[in-house]
Amino acid sequence: MSRAKAADRPLVGILMGSDSDWEEMKPAADTLRELGVPFEVEVTSAHRSPARTTEYAATAAGRGLKVVIAGAGAAAHLAGVVAAHTLLPVIGVPIPSSPLAGLDSLLSTAQMPGGVPVATMALGKAGAKNAALLAAEILALGDAPLRTRLVAHRKRMASDLEAKSRELRERLARKG
Amino acid sequence: MSRAKAADRPLVGILMGSDSDWEEMKPAADTLRELGVPFEVEVTSAHRSPARTTEYAATAAGRGLKVVIAGAGAAAHLAGVVAAHTLLPVIGVPIPSSPLAGLDSLLSTAQMPGGVPVATMALGKAGAKNAALLAAEILALGDAPLRTRLVAHRKRMASDLEAKSRELRERLARKG
Amino acid sequence: MSRAKAADRPLVGILMGSDSDWEEMKPAADTLRELGVPFEVEVTSAHRSPARTTEYAATAAGRGLKVVIAGAGAAAHLAGVVAAHTLLPVIGVPIPSSPLAGLDSLLSTAQMPGGVPVATMALGKAGAKNAALLAAEILALGDAPLRTRLVAHRKRMASDLEAKSRELRERLARKG
Amino acid sequence: MSRAKAADRPLVGILMGSDSDWEEMKPAADTLRELGVPFEVEVTSAHRSPARTTEYAATAAGRGLKVVIAGAGAAAHLAGVVAAHTLLPVIGVPIPSSPLAGLDSLLSTAQMPGGVPVATMALGKAGAKNAALLAAEILALGDAPLRTRLVAHRKRMASDLEAKSRELRERLARKG
Amino acid sequence: MSRAKAADRPLVGILMGSDSDWEEMKPAADTLRELGVPFEVEVTSAHRSPARTTEYAATAAGRGLKVVIAGAGAAAHLAGVVAAHTLLPVIGVPIPSSPLAGLDSLLSTAQMPGGVPVATMALGKAGAKNAALLAAEILALGDAPLRTRLVAHRKRMASDLEAKSRELRERLARKG
Amino acid sequence: MSRAKAADRPLVGILMGSDSDWEEMKPAADTLRELGVPFEVEVTSAHRSPARTTEYAATAAGRGLKVVIAGAGAAAHLAGVVAAHTLLPVIGVPIPSSPLAGLDSLLSTAQMPGGVPVATMALGKAGAKNAALLAAEILALGDAPLRTRLVAHRKRMASDLEAKSRELRERLARKG
Amino acid sequence: MSRAKAADRPLVGILMGSDSDWEEMKPAADTLRELGVPFEVEVTSAHRSPARTTEYAATAAGRGLKVVIAGAGAAAHLAGVVAAHTLLPVIGVPIPSSPLAGLDSLLSTAQMPGGVPVATMALGKAGAKNAALLAAEILALGDAPLRTRLVAHRKRMASDLEAKSRELRERLARKG
Amino acid sequence: MSRAKAADRPLVGILMGSDSDWEEMKPAADTLRELGVPFEVEVTSAHRSPARTTEYAATAAGRGLKVVIAGAGAAAHLAGVVAAHTLLPVIGVPIPSSPLAGLDSLLSTAQMPGGVPVATMALGKAGAKNAALLAAEILALGDAPLRTRLVAHRKRMASDLEAKSRELRERLARKG
Repeated sequence: MSRAKAADRPLVGILMGSDSDWEEMKPAADTLRELGVPFEVEVTSAHRSPARTTEYAATAAGRGLKVVIAGAGAAAHLAGVVAAHTLLPVIGVPIPSSPLAGLDSLLSTAQMPGGVPVATMALGKAGAKNAALLAAEILALGDAPLRTRLVAHRKRMASDLEAKSRELRERLARKG
Repeated sequence: MSRAKAADRPLVGILMGSDSDWEEMKPAADTLRELGVPFEVEVTSAHRSPARTTEYAATAAGRGLKVVIAGAGAAAHLAGVVAAHTLLPVIGVPIPSSPLAGLDSLLSTAQMPGGVPVATMALGKAGAKNAALLAAEILALGDAPLRTRLVAHRKRMASDLEAKSRELRERLARKG
Repeated sequence: MSRAKAADRPLVGILMGSDSDWEEMKPAADTLRELGVPFEVEVTSAHRSPARTTEYAATAAGRGLKVVIAGAGAAAHLAGVVAAHTLLPVIGVPIPSSPLAGLDSLLSTAQMPGGVPVATMALGKAGAKNAALLAAEILALGDAPLRTRLVAHRKRMASDLEAKSRELRERLARKG
Repeated sequence: MSRAKAADRPLVGILMGSDSDWEEMKPAADTLRELGVPFEVEVTSAHRSPARTTEYAATAAGRGLKVVIAGAGAAAHLAGVVAAHTLLPVIGVPIPSSPLAGLDSLLSTAQMPGGVPVATMALGKAGAKNAALLAAEILALGDAPLRTRLVAHRKRMASDLEAKSRELRERLARKG
Repeated sequence: MSRAKAADRPLVGILMGSDSDWEEMKPAADTLRELGVPFEVEVTSAHRSPARTTEYAATAAGRGLKVVIAGAGAAAHLAGVVAAHTLLPVIGVPIPSSPLAGLDSLLSTAQMPGGVPVATMALGKAGAKNAALLAAEILALGDAPLRTRLVAHRKRMASDLEAKSRELRERLARKG
Repeated sequence: MSRAKAADRPLVGILMGSDSDWEEMKPAADTLRELGVPFEVEVTSAHRSPARTTEYAATAAGRGLKVVIAGAGAAAHLAGVVAAHTLLPVIGVPIPSSPLAGLDSLLSTAQMPGGVPVATMALGKAGAKNAALLAAEILALGDAPLRTRLVAHRKRMASDLEAKSRELRERLARKG
Repeated sequence: MSRAKAADRPLVGILMGSDSDWEEMKPAADTLRELGVPFEVEVTSAHRSPARTTEYAATAAGRGLKVVIAGAGAAAHLAGVVAAHTLLPVIGVPIPSSPLAGLDSLLSTAQMPGGVPVATMALGKAGAKNAALLAAEILALGDAPLRTRLVAHRKRMASDLEAKSRELRERLARKG
Repeated sequence: MSRAKAADRPLVGILMGSDSDWEEMKPAADTLRELGVPFEVEVTSAHRSPARTTEYAATAAGRGLKVVIAGAGAAAHLAGVVAAHTLLPVIGVPIPSSPLAGLDSLLSTAQMPGGVPVATMALGKAGAKNAALLAAEILALGDAPLRTRLVAHRKRMASDLEAKSRELRERLARKG
């Protein structure tokens, strides 16, 4: 059973510029659920639904959100536009959906001018997962149980890796 | 004497994300003035003054503008945000103001998602000049005298180049 | 039934440097047809059929065309060569057909020298669609019904996205 | 008079990999001081002083820090190494100090593997300023007065830009 | 039968940041085995298992290792972190596992700051093979029989290529 | 029947650094055969068979070759090494065989230092075909019949494209 | 005294897209003069003086030219447009005149589509010098004295370098 | 007084492709001298003096050299060509001397094909210093006193950085 329940008031908003970005953004949702952080999901574009995007950003804090995660590809303006309309921390996930494999979305997300920050993550799934973890780290500053769950997550990650290392060594030894 | 007078109602709006972009954007203003196209200039940022930017874009057509030129550097979202709020043709000029020499602003301006076009020009001064020329080409579809001035501009450009070619050859010949 | 009929005199010319570019350029044709803008299609190369390309560009305005869209890959010179021979607005669509995934065609199309503008779009299909929309925005400056259709297109785009957002949220809720 | 006093217990740690990075990182300190956020500064390298870096990261939360900002150039590992040893939010500022103008430090900072997030900012001074603003946004989630100061900062930014726009227009008008 | 036996005390350590990197790193193991250089393999990450990574590096020389090979993708910090904790020669193999096809891992591995060297190889399998060959060249400075095997390896490489050249020519001649 | 016969003394040498480059280099052979230019093919590497490469280059002119074409991938040194050992025109074809999709081989081939030229072609198959055409253009300076065949080749290329343009237009018309 | 005299009928045409490219292209002229190859110089642009450029290319062979060298910056189309109108070997020199430091001109020159070759040189001065050397290598296929001068040029280059090596060693020895 | 004396038989050869690379390569010499590792310096090019380069590489081991360091810019083939002619470890230092700021030399040095390794360092001075340190690490495998000097060098580096950190903090405190 997942920790985060539908009834919980969302603390994190996950936005994406297109429903085709969902495959890349799904690790953000999975990780937040695993960490017990309630969230909501919305598809909205800086360019194709600008009014809805602006309103979402401007009302996010008032609705109780603490962090906004925004994933977009190509000339990825979504995170920047959201950040321009809120003082909540905004985390940008560049999606590698264009032929340039994400060089465009990474630069469009990271190279924000002085004055309006976007916390840029890695491209695609790794970045989506890390966006959730960063959101949790931010929330954990005021939520000790969440912090405990994050500590456990880190430990599990290290021991999983150690197990995989052992498996690989054993596999090689058998092939001797 | 410049053709475009202050009293003329502007047909083109020149936006830039920072007043430090003016040196790069000035050729747009100079070229429009030379071609007798009335214009206005505004410094507004997609991120630092988003409300003013959105309002400018949303009211541009109503105020009689026909084309908007928007120059910005780094994660250049200005042209895209303007284009999201108007159906006027929007011309984007990427400014090479960040350490990445404009690769970021070029990709952030050009790689717009399907649905909201931005007519992207070259980086910096060459792009600013061409933004004015493209605006004039668009306006000239319904303005025959402007078209005549554009024809003259092209001819002058070719003959200027021919003169420079002659000068270079003569200079080389003298050095024998 | 499509709006644009074969009998209509074309206002937009869609050029491409190779017939293998058609898959990428098709969204330009589809979008123009959807918006009721009559167009023509031509395969011609700046390098392999230079005489035909030059003649096409030089006669385009005389034949009633108002805008030319040119798609090409690799060292994409097509839009620039066309722009050098006409004062109609020229829209360039860089095609990501080479191993460099379009970095070459994007730079070859966008980085035009001062004097001859090319309105550069995004790489590939998104750019082809946007080329059609920009052409329509330009034509709509003198065609109020087209402008009305463009307004409807934008609204549909926003409501489609809102519907997709709802679907995704419902799908996630069901999986609870 | 600056808001943040030396006596205040620091909430933000600003690290940099070399004392030559100070010019680029100074806007982080200036902005935190302006916003009244107490901070400390340390020069330590992921490679040249790894033990001190690891210890700093591992003890940061215990010493009362809430956010760590880390700036580094070239193969910029500093933010990633710090993030590997703490669960505090870590903000990375890529410094454009190598011949590659920051493409290396940006990718080295942003492209973190899934599991350990680094909130990557823009290259250089703009990124350093934004790192301070993001840190403040994070702290403001639990500090209403800081949030009020952030709101004021945003408003000032918008009105400053509007003033600069007016100045530019007046300057152009005088030149007629 | 392979030359290097399980019982031999390893001289080279092959590290990788994820077990999914094994396919790319396998040529390092294959080549060391072929050259009779005993080695060990470990999966450990600079970010997800930093303590184990640091300890591995710090104890490597004491356990008799002479060279460490470290492969990692994306913001590849593994080789740099290992190099920061040992004075053994460290060879870095950038893995092209992110959407950026290895540009990120190559720059993150190669652009080390002055003071802590990483011997960077080519991306992926070619680099993994060359890492083994470089390790062997280093060991061969004090191991004449290994040097003889390296000489033979080079000769075989040249004659294999000559044979393939002959085959291609004959195949073409037959089709003549 | 192909024009170039096995018995003809080769005028062009086609080198490639690996037999796996053959698929990319084949258009060079096909085009030379089509134009009736006798050639030979050799697999030799700047790094893996340096002595054979050097000897090939040093004896090429003496054996009657007039042009050398060299294709290689990654850190493509083959064309440059050949050019260092002959005064025949050397044409380099960068092969996109590494994860970097040819950015590496293109820069390694094109960016030769002043003193030793390599005529660099496009990446991969297009470049291989053009290498043959450039070799033919060079030979045609002293071979009028070859020049006539090149003229015919160009005409055919233009008329082929025109035919494809007609086909596309007819296909679209039928779908009306 | 220079070898190539003004009275000699030019064998090589040096084109450049702007007179501001002359500083970068001058080594081409200097090297041809040093090798005794008569040449002519012309400033003409693919975009700003397309008719003159096309005519130059179309009449080049008829006027006795054997090779055309074309230097251009940014979206460098000059060499490609010339190559489309002549069957003489065309050598392209990408000029690093835009903010992108020549990445644009290099790709625009090198990535020609199959069918129309451009012999691409390195960026800027090194490329201009090599363009002259390649032109001389091509001409030397039918001009034995020129070949002798090229052999001498290569030898001088090697001995100059050896002298510089000696000087550096002596300078270091003195500083002991 | 420097440790390494002129009379010592050199263990490391420092090559560079041009005497203008000396400024970038000097840190290699300085660091070797500081560590007491005798070395020699030579200017030789893979392209402009290929025979001397090949001979240097082929005779290096016989003359007692243990490691070769090779620095070159642009299409940097020097390290690769040397590595093709010796089984000594070869360390490549890419020099950022072309307009592309070293992207070309880095890829030309690092992306070696499987079979012939080059230990690639960072661009320019940082890489030159690290080349010397890597050479020392290799030599220290069989030279305990050198290893002791390397340990001291690392400690000094860490304490120097700590001192600079203290200075910066004190400077900031004074400005209070």
